[in-house]
Amino acid sequence: MLVRLPKWYTELRLSCRQIQKCQRLSFSTVVEKNKTKDRLNVGVFGAGRIASSVHIPNILRDRRYNINWVVEENEQQSQKVKDQLFLHDIPFLTFKDRKSLLADKGLDAVFVFSPTSTHAEIICDSLKEAKSVMVEKPTAESFTDIKTCYETAENYGTVLLTSFQRRFDPAFASLKATAQSGTLGDLQLLRLTSRDNPKPSYEFLSNTDQEGCNLISDMAIHDIDMLVWLTSCAAPKSVFVMTHIRDETLQKIGEPDAGVVALTFQDGLMATIDVFRECVYGYDIRTEMFGTKGMAMADNPRRSSYSVDYLQGSSSPPLHYSFPQRFEKAFELALAHFYSCLSGDVQPLVTKEECLLVSKIIEKAVESYKTGKVVNF
Amino acid sequence: MLVRLPKWYTELRLSCRQIQKCQRLSFSTVVEKNKTKDRLNVGVFGAGRIASSVHIPNILRDRRYNINWVVEENEQQSQKVKDQLFLHDIPFLTFKDRKSLLADKGLDAVFVFSPTSTHAEIICDSLKEAKSVMVEKPTAESFTDIKTCYETAENYGTVLLTSFQRRFDPAFASLKATAQSGTLGDLQLLRLTSRDNPKPSYEFLSNTDQEGCNLISDMAIHDIDMLVWLTSCAAPKSVFVMTHIRDETLQKIGEPDAGVVALTFQDGLMATIDVFRECVYGYDIRTEMFGTKGMAMADNPRRSSYSVDYLQGSSSPPLHYSFPQRFEKAFELALAHFYSCLSGDVQPLVTKEECLLVSKIIEKAVESYKTGKVVNF
Amino acid sequence: MLVRLPKWYTELRLSCRQIQKCQRLSFSTVVEKNKTKDRLNVGVFGAGRIASSVHIPNILRDRRYNINWVVEENEQQSQKVKDQLFLHDIPFLTFKDRKSLLADKGLDAVFVFSPTSTHAEIICDSLKEAKSVMVEKPTAESFTDIKTCYETAENYGTVLLTSFQRRFDPAFASLKATAQSGTLGDLQLLRLTSRDNPKPSYEFLSNTDQEGCNLISDMAIHDIDMLVWLTSCAAPKSVFVMTHIRDETLQKIGEPDAGVVALTFQDGLMATIDVFRECVYGYDIRTEMFGTKGMAMADNPRRSSYSVDYLQGSSSPPLHYSFPQRFEKAFELALAHFYSCLSGDVQPLVTKEECLLVSKIIEKAVESYKTGKVVNF
Amino acid sequence: MLVRLPKWYTELRLSCRQIQKCQRLSFSTVVEKNKTKDRLNVGVFGAGRIASSVHIPNILRDRRYNINWVVEENEQQSQKVKDQLFLHDIPFLTFKDRKSLLADKGLDAVFVFSPTSTHAEIICDSLKEAKSVMVEKPTAESFTDIKTCYETAENYGTVLLTSFQRRFDPAFASLKATAQSGTLGDLQLLRLTSRDNPKPSYEFLSNTDQEGCNLISDMAIHDIDMLVWLTSCAAPKSVFVMTHIRDETLQKIGEPDAGVVALTFQDGLMATIDVFRECVYGYDIRTEMFGTKGMAMADNPRRSSYSVDYLQGSSSPPLHYSFPQRFEKAFELALAHFYSCLSGDVQPLVTKEECLLVSKIIEKAVESYKTGKVVNF
Repeated sequence: MLVRLPKWYTELRLSCRQIQKCQRLSFSTVVEKNKTKDRLNVGVFGAGRIASSVHIPNILRDRRYNINWVVEENEQQSQKVKDQLFLHDIPFLTFKDRKSLLADKGLDAVFVFSPTSTHAEIICDSLKEAKSVMVEKPTAESFTDIKTCYETAENYGTVLLTSFQRRFDPAFASLKATAQSGTLGDLQLLRLTSRDNPKPSYEFLSNTDQEGCNLISDMAIHDIDMLVWLTSCAAPKSVFVMTHIRDETLQKIGEPDAGVVALTFQDGLMATIDVFRECVYGYDIRTEMFGTKGMAMADNPRRSSYSVDYLQGSSSPPLHYSFPQRFEKAFELALAHFYSCLSGDVQPLVTKEECLLVSKIIEKAVESYKTGKVVNF
Repeated sequence: MLVRLPKWYTELRLSCRQIQKCQRLSFSTVVEKNKTKDRLNVGVFGAGRIASSVHIPNILRDRRYNINWVVEENEQQSQKVKDQLFLHDIPFLTFKDRKSLLADKGLDAVFVFSPTSTHAEIICDSLKEAKSVMVEKPTAESFTDIKTCYETAENYGTVLLTSFQRRFDPAFASLKATAQSGTLGDLQLLRLTSRDNPKPSYEFLSNTDQEGCNLISDMAIHDIDMLVWLTSCAAPKSVFVMTHIRDETLQKIGEPDAGVVALTFQDGLMATIDVFRECVYGYDIRTEMFGTKGMAMADNPRRSSYSVDYLQGSSSPPLHYSFPQRFEKAFELALAHFYSCLSGDVQPLVTKEECLLVSKIIEKAVESYKTGKVVNF
Repeated sequence: MLVRLPKWYTELRLSCRQIQKCQRLSFSTVVEKNKTKDRLNVGVFGAGRIASSVHIPNILRDRRYNINWVVEENEQQSQKVKDQLFLHDIPFLTFKDRKSLLADKGLDAVFVFSPTSTHAEIICDSLKEAKSVMVEKPTAESFTDIKTCYETAENYGTVLLTSFQRRFDPAFASLKATAQSGTLGDLQLLRLTSRDNPKPSYEFLSNTDQEGCNLISDMAIHDIDMLVWLTSCAAPKSVFVMTHIRDETLQKIGEPDAGVVALTFQDGLMATIDVFRECVYGYDIRTEMFGTKGMAMADNPRRSSYSVDYLQGSSSPPLHYSFPQRFEKAFELALAHFYSCLSGDVQPLVTKEECLLVSKIIEKAVESYKTGKVVNF
Repeated sequence: MLVRLPKWYTELRLSCRQIQKCQRLSFSTVVEKNKTKDRLNVGVFGAGRIASSVHIPNILRDRRYNINWVVEENEQQSQKVKDQLFLHDIPFLTFKDRKSLLADKGLDAVFVFSPTSTHAEIICDSLKEAKSVMVEKPTAESFTDIKTCYETAENYGTVLLTSFQRRFDPAFASLKATAQSGTLGDLQLLRLTSRDNPKPSYEFLSNTDQEGCNLISDMAIHDIDMLVWLTSCAAPKSVFVMTHIRDETLQKIGEPDAGVVALTFQDGLMATIDVFRECVYGYDIRTEMFGTKGMAMADNPRRSSYSVDYLQGSSSPPLHYSFPQRFEKAFELALAHFYSCLSGDVQPLVTKEECLLVSKIIEKAVESYKTGKVVNF
C-alpha cells in the first residue's frame, strides 16, 4: 500500500540535488562520484522559444554540463538569448558550422531543440561523430526516420535520448512504478486528460503539417507515449478518434482543437485520451489507471498549498499556468538522466521500441480521424 | 473570494523565471530590463551545510549573480564544495582576507551564511564598504546587535536583507496578501505548526546557546517571524511556553525537543505555535489564520500529486522530506528579491522593525520557558 | 465563482429535515405548512432487495408518509421484511389484490419497486385510479411503454416520478446548477465514471435481458440520465461502444463487465462514460464537465474525513462501499421530492422527454455494441 | 498503514443499517437477531430544540424503539412538536406525571433531553425504577452529581449512557482506533479545533451559569471529552486558559466567545483546544493527534464532493452548517449504541471515569480562566 517512487527516480533526484545531509547520503560518496567524472562539454542546436525559456537555462543550472556553443539560425533570436541569459562568452553559430563543430574531439554530446524537420539529419550526423544526443520529442518526422536515428545510435554505440519530460515528473514516475509492481492487478482502463494552456498561436498551429491532425501528432503524442510506457508497449487492437473544431480561425485551417482518442488493446485493456488545445483554468494533465485490484492517479498539483474558507465555500489557487511551470522539475531531471546515461550508470528511460510504437499509434489515429471510422491495428 | 498572490510576488517570480511567452510578458521588455542591469559581482561568507547545499547552488543558478569569491575557514569543506559544484575557477579564501575583499570597488554585495556569532561584524564591515548584504536568519545574536546592523545599513544607504525564506513561498505569500486585504475580518487566532525533519544532530543542538532555549530561538524563530509579518507587527500582550524533552540525549543537555508557545495580543488576537524537533512523516510547516469573516491556511504540499486507491483505502506520498525540498523555490526567490532590492525596484520585504519585534518575542518566550509562568510584555 | 446548490435542492432538504433554528426558518412556518398537509397514505409494490434495504426504511423515516400496505409475491421475503423492520401492523398482500387496493379512495400514491417487467401495468393501473406514482428506474421496459406511462399521467392529471436518485445528491445537483448557470461557457466534454461495487450476483446478471447489453441498459442508464439532465436534452449525433468481458462466468453468458460509451453531440460536445461491473476500492461514481470557461466535478466522498500520516505517506479511508451508502441521503431526498410534487409545490425533476431520450440513447448504444461500429442518430 | 474503523463501530453501523446484501451479512442472521429482541418501549424527557429537531426524529427512525410518551413542560412546544412530527398518537405529559410513568413495568428505558439542572434527579429516579438511561451531555451539573448518577446505575445494575455524539462519528472513531493501536508511537500533541456556527442566541448564553465560563463548560466539554477518550484518561499536569470577548453584548454579560485551553500531561503529552462561539464559514470541528511515529487527523467533511475550477482558481462547498448536519449520522449511531448496550452486546462507550475526569478538567480550566494563571492538578 506504500506510495513509493521507483529507485531510478530517487537516485536521479539525488544526483541532481547533491544535497547530502538531508538525503542521508554520505558527503564523501557524492564528491567522490563527481571527482571521477569531468564536466561534459556540450553543444546546443536551437535557441527558440522552449529552448531559450526552459532547456538552455536548465543546462546552465546543471553544473555538470558546460555549454561549448549554441547553433541558432535566427540572429535576432541569438542576440536576445545572449542578453537575457548573460551568455556573452558562449559562441552562437549557425547551421553551416555544424560539421566542424561536431568533429571536435573535446565535445561529448549535443542537445537538439531545433525544428522537427531538422532532427533526423542533426541526430545522425552527431551520432556518427560519436556525440551522444538528447532530442526534444518527437525523435524525428516519420516512423522510418525514427528507426534510422535509433539504428545509427546502435551502430555507433552512442546514446540517443528522446525527451518525453512527463516521465520525469514524480507523479507519473510513481504511476509507472505501480504499473510495474502488479499491485493494481490487470489493467482495465487508462484514462488520460490532456488540456493545454494557453492556446498556441495560430502561427504555430498553421505552420505544422496540415495533412494530418496536429492535435494528435503534436499534442496527444505525450499522452500516447505515457500509454505506451505505462503498459510496457502493450499491443493495440483498435483506435477511434472523435474531434471538433470550436475556434473559428482553426475552422478555416481545418485543424481540430478538441478530440477524444479511444483505444482497445489485445488483452482487453481500454484507453481514452481527451485532448483540448485550450483550458482556461490552467494546464490540466492527468492520468488514471484502473485495474482489477485498485486505481492509481497522477493528478494536477496546484500553484500553492494555500486555501481560504469563507461563508460561501472554500477556494484554492489554480493549476499551474502551463508546461514550463508544471514540469519545471521534470525538465531538469530529464537533463540529469541524460548525464546518468552518458556516465553509463543507467540505460535511457525512453527506448527505440517505445518511440516506434508511439509513431505507429499516431499513424493509425490520424487514419481514424480522416475516415471517421474505427481503425484496427 | 479569489485566491491571488500579491503583486510583488508575481513580479518576483517573473523576474526569476524570465519565461516570456508563457507569462505573457513581451520578450523585449525583459531583455531590455536585463540589458540595463549588469550582472552583480558578489562575495559569499560561509560554505557550510546549508550554504553549500542550498544557497551557493542557487546563486550559481541565478544568472544575474557572478560569484567573485567564497570565504570559508574550514579548508576541507572548501575543497569538498569546489569539487561538488565544479567551482575550481572561483577563489576560496578565509576570514582574514575579508578586509581587502570588501574594499574591492567592483564588488556589489555579499551573502552571509557564516555562524550567527560572526554575523554582526561581517554585516557592519560590509555595509560600511557600501556592499549590500543578504544574511541568513537571525540577523545577529542579540536585539542590540540587530539594531546596530540595521542602523548601519540606514546610515550607509545600503540594503540589508535578512532572509526568512518562508515568506517567499507562494502559500505563505498568499496568506500575507489575504491578511492585508481584510477579507478575513478581524484576526482571532493564528495557529502555527512547526515540526522539523530530520532531527538535527546532537552536535548541532549542543553547540548552540545553552542558556536559552534553542527550540525557540533557533527553530520557532521562523514561526515568530511569520506571526510578526502576518499581523503587521501587532503588539503582543503575554506569552506562555510549555515544553517537554522526549529525547534521552537531549534530557542530559537540558534542551527541549517539544513545545507550545501561546500568545495573546493587545487587540484580542491569540496565537499558538507548536514546535517539535522531529517529525517522522516529513517536514510539517503550516499556518492557519482564523478571522471573523473566514479562515485561510498555508498547508503542506506533498512530494507529488500521485495517489492510489485499494480495497483498504487511499494513499498519497509523504510531505517533503525537509526544508531544502519544501522551500526549494522560496530560497531561489529570496535571492531574486535581493536582486530586485539592489536594482531599486522594491524595498526589502523583511524590515528592521520586524526583526526587532521577533527578537523581543523570543526574549520574552525564553523567560516564560525558564520561569514556567505567563510573561507579560 | 460561488459554489451554490440550486434553490430547489435547498428547499427540498429543508422540507426533509425540518430543523428550524439551524436553518434559520421560523419554527411556525414549517409547522404551519405541515398542518395544512395531511400525511399521505401510500401503498408499496415490491419488497425485494433494494426496496427492503433502502426504500421502505426511508418511507418509514419520512413522517409525512403512512404506509397502508405492501404488495410482495414472495411470502418468505414478506415475512423477513416484516420481522426485520417491525412491520407486523402493516398488511403484506400479493399482486392479485391490487385492483381493490388501488380503488381505495383514501390512498394517495403508490411506490413501484417491483421487477421492471411489471412497471408499465402497475403504473398505468395506478394512474388511472388517480394515484400518483414514484417508480424505480427504468420507468418501463421499452421506449413505447415509457411513452404510454407518461401519457397516462398527463391524461389523468397525476404525478409520475421516475426516481433517478443520483440527481438528488448535492454534488450532482450542484453540477446541474452550474451547467444551467452558463458559468462554464460552452460545454466541450462530459466525462462520466461508473464503477460498481460489489459485482452483482450471477443470478441477477443472467436473469436480465440477454438480447441487449445489461451493462448499458441496467447500469450505464444512470450515467446516460445524468448526461441528458446536465445537457438539458442536447441532441446526440453519434455513439460508439467498446466492451470487454473479463469475468469467466460472464464470458459464458456473453455479458460484458467493462465498457466505454463515447458520444458526440450536434453542438460539438463530446462525452465518454466508462462502465465497470466491479471496482474493488469502492463505489466509484464521478462526473466531470469541461467547458470553455471552466471545469466542474462531482467527485466521490470518502467513508470519513479521517487521515493518517506515517513515514511512508498518508492514508485515507476508502470510498463508500456501494450505492446504499453513497446515495443514502439522495434516496431520502427523492422521497421528499415526491412529497413536494404531490403537494403541488414543484414539478417532477425527471421529465417525460428526459426518460424518452435516455431510452433512445440506450437503444443506439446497444446497436453500436452489437455491430462494433459507430452509430449515428 | 491501513485506515480502519474499530470493530465496535462497524458492527454498530451494521446493526443500524440492516442492509444485508451490501454489507455481506447473511439476511437470516440479522432477522434472527431482531426476532429475539423485542422493540424497546421508551419514554422521552424534554422536547426542546435539540430534542425535537435531532433526537426525537432519530428515535422515530430507529424501528427498534417505540416511544411510549414524551414529558415536556412547555405546552406550546409540545403542540408544535406533535404537529411537526405527526405525533398525535403519542401522549405528551408533564414532569408531575413522571413517578407513575417510571413505575410502568412495560417501560424499558428513558432518554433525558431536559435542562441540565434536572438531569441528576430524573436519572436517579429512572435508574431506581430499573429503567436504563441515555442522557445528553453533561451527565449532571457537578462532579458530585455525576458520581451519584453513575453509582446509582452501578447499584441498580442498569445502563447509564452519557451521549457524547462526536465519539460516534467515523472520523473520530478512527482516531480512537489509531490511538489504541499504538501505531502513532507516543502521543506528543493533541490539537483540537472547536468553532461553533451559528453563534448561540444571547438568551441561551445568558441563561447559563454566569459564575463559571460557559465557553469551557458548555462548549469545550466536547473537546475535553475527546481528549479524555483518546488518551484513555491520561493524567493531566497543568492547564492554562486564554480568553477574549469580541461580541459587544457578551462583553456586558462577561462571557468569553473566544479561548484557547492549553494542557500538559504527566507523560509529556501537550494539548491545545481553541474554542470560538462563532465561525462564519461553517461548523469547524477537528482533532489532530501527533505522535512519535505519525500523525492522525479527524478533519471536516464538506457539504458535498463538488468542486469547480475557473481561471481564478478552484472552489468547493462550505463545511457543514452546524452540528445537526455534521453529526447527523453520529446522533443516529449513538441511539443504536444505546440499543446494543441494553441488548447486552456491548458496554457503554462512555464510562464513569471518563465523565468524572472531564468534569475535573473543566473545574481546573475554569479556575485558570478566573485567575489568569497556570493551574496544576
